[in-house]
Amino acid sequence: MTANELFENIKRKKSFLCVGLDTDLKKIPPVLLKEEDPVFAFNKVIIDATAGFCVAYKPNSAFYECLGVKGWIAFEKTVRYIRENYPDQFIIADAKRGDIGNTSEMYARTFFDTLKLDAVTVTPYMGEDSVKPFLIYPGSWVILLALTSNKGSQDFQLTEDKNGERLFEKVIKTSQKWADKDRLMYVVGATQGKMFQDIRKAAPDHFLLVPGVGAQGGSLQDVVEYGINDRCGLLVNSSRAIIYADNSENFAESARMEARKVQKEMEDLLRKHGLLS
Amino acid sequence: MTANELFENIKRKKSFLCVGLDTDLKKIPPVLLKEEDPVFAFNKVIIDATAGFCVAYKPNSAFYECLGVKGWIAFEKTVRYIRENYPDQFIIADAKRGDIGNTSEMYARTFFDTLKLDAVTVTPYMGEDSVKPFLIYPGSWVILLALTSNKGSQDFQLTEDKNGERLFEKVIKTSQKWADKDRLMYVVGATQGKMFQDIRKAAPDHFLLVPGVGAQGGSLQDVVEYGINDRCGLLVNSSRAIIYADNSENFAESARMEARKVQKEMEDLLRKHGLLS
Repeated sequence: MTANELFENIKRKKSFLCVGLDTDLKKIPPVLLKEEDPVFAFNKVIIDATAGFCVAYKPNSAFYECLGVKGWIAFEKTVRYIRENYPDQFIIADAKRGDIGNTSEMYARTFFDTLKLDAVTVTPYMGEDSVKPFLIYPGSWVILLALTSNKGSQDFQLTEDKNGERLFEKVIKTSQKWADKDRLMYVVGATQGKMFQDIRKAAPDHFLLVPGVGAQGGSLQDVVEYGINDRCGLLVNSSRAIIYADNSENFAESARMEARKVQKEMEDLLRKHGLLS
Repeated sequence: MTANELFENIKRKKSFLCVGLDTDLKKIPPVLLKEEDPVFAFNKVIIDATAGFCVAYKPNSAFYECLGVKGWIAFEKTVRYIRENYPDQFIIADAKRGDIGNTSEMYARTFFDTLKLDAVTVTPYMGEDSVKPFLIYPGSWVILLALTSNKGSQDFQLTEDKNGERLFEKVIKTSQKWADKDRLMYVVGATQGKMFQDIRKAAPDHFLLVPGVGAQGGSLQDVVEYGINDRCGLLVNSSRAIIYADNSENFAESARMEARKVQKEMEDLLRKHGLLS
């Protein structure tokens, strides 16, 4: 999917919501635990309930890996279910990978060849040759960590070099030499507020994947105020606030209502910024 | 396993070799492809052939994940095989993980609860709260990326801050507040040569996991010259040079000879530095 196609989906669905599938056996409705594959059973219902209100899904690989082989089966089934039933969705593996070239090639094979995903999150610490192998598959996207939503983002990402350039800015500037804006996004936490202005100076045209709205406390209003561009340029993720809105047997309807509420808020913001006709 | 126990194993086996299990279906002897689980079949033979000459194994998760569910089965079987048959081996998941707290907790569960590994490699970009969850399991180790062996290590890891401190040095200094040297190692590439002197200034007592000897061109002599300490403090990894020494039906014997050769070289170096009585 190109950036333009993604923007077309955003306009058509009046939403730039990404639903994070951080599916945790300890948090899903207990009624599902008797299913053969409770994780997939939960995801399937959540996807059917929310697909009308979002443009992307982001399964977080950690939540699947921790279940071992069963988790990987659930991950594969989830991706396949989205692909087959909602082909307009952009699917992101939130995996935060990155390693020496021959190993990154293996990860790229996992996510783009074996699993047919659209994008994978990648950590920049090991530099160019750890990132580029993710771009060898036609149309594949890298979503590079820039300024994350957690407290630890302050430990290294804000370190200034001799010229006053902070590490996350250096990551954004340097990585633009590796791929164009149809293949590269950045992760910027919603908790970073006005820092979005600095991000937009370094990357005016790129899409940003924005976690941290909802459970982590970031404000959608602020993100849009400081981060939106003329192609929207934002995919705002919400995981826990939507998928765990309710753990009774009504969980699907509650997730639907929550996703719809966020979509409505996004529709208003897109309209306010002149991106809907 | 504590750092002292690891050092005892190093003295007893006269080796600080870690064998990297980067098992690739395209590189293993074709005769194995008819096995039901060729990856595990290969690993089992390699482990039996080399266990006498090494103190650690490092399966690289990327090489298993890229095979999907089958790969994870092979990964689990490999770890279990080492645990049951060679309980003195230190087992490292080379996974380079790291994410916000609740996600890192999930990864930690994968590697230390589900898989019963000793250590996992972690990337420092997201800071303290992305690293600490890996330490909640008793005896678990974090091996933090500091100065890696690849070309891209120059993109960000060497960036100097206003005080002239390079990012890898800041990572080493800052992270020592998060865990003591019985739970924390650093990845330092063998290709970094004399930089080991700078690493030892920042972390005189820690164990270092050193990839990049062999296929990547690093020198064991240099690593030891500049990196050894009074508890050895080094785990030197070799993957391709040992496990793919030969892809004929004689591969086990070739791997054994190659591991033995490295062990002999290590024995001489340990003796030269007064660590063997």
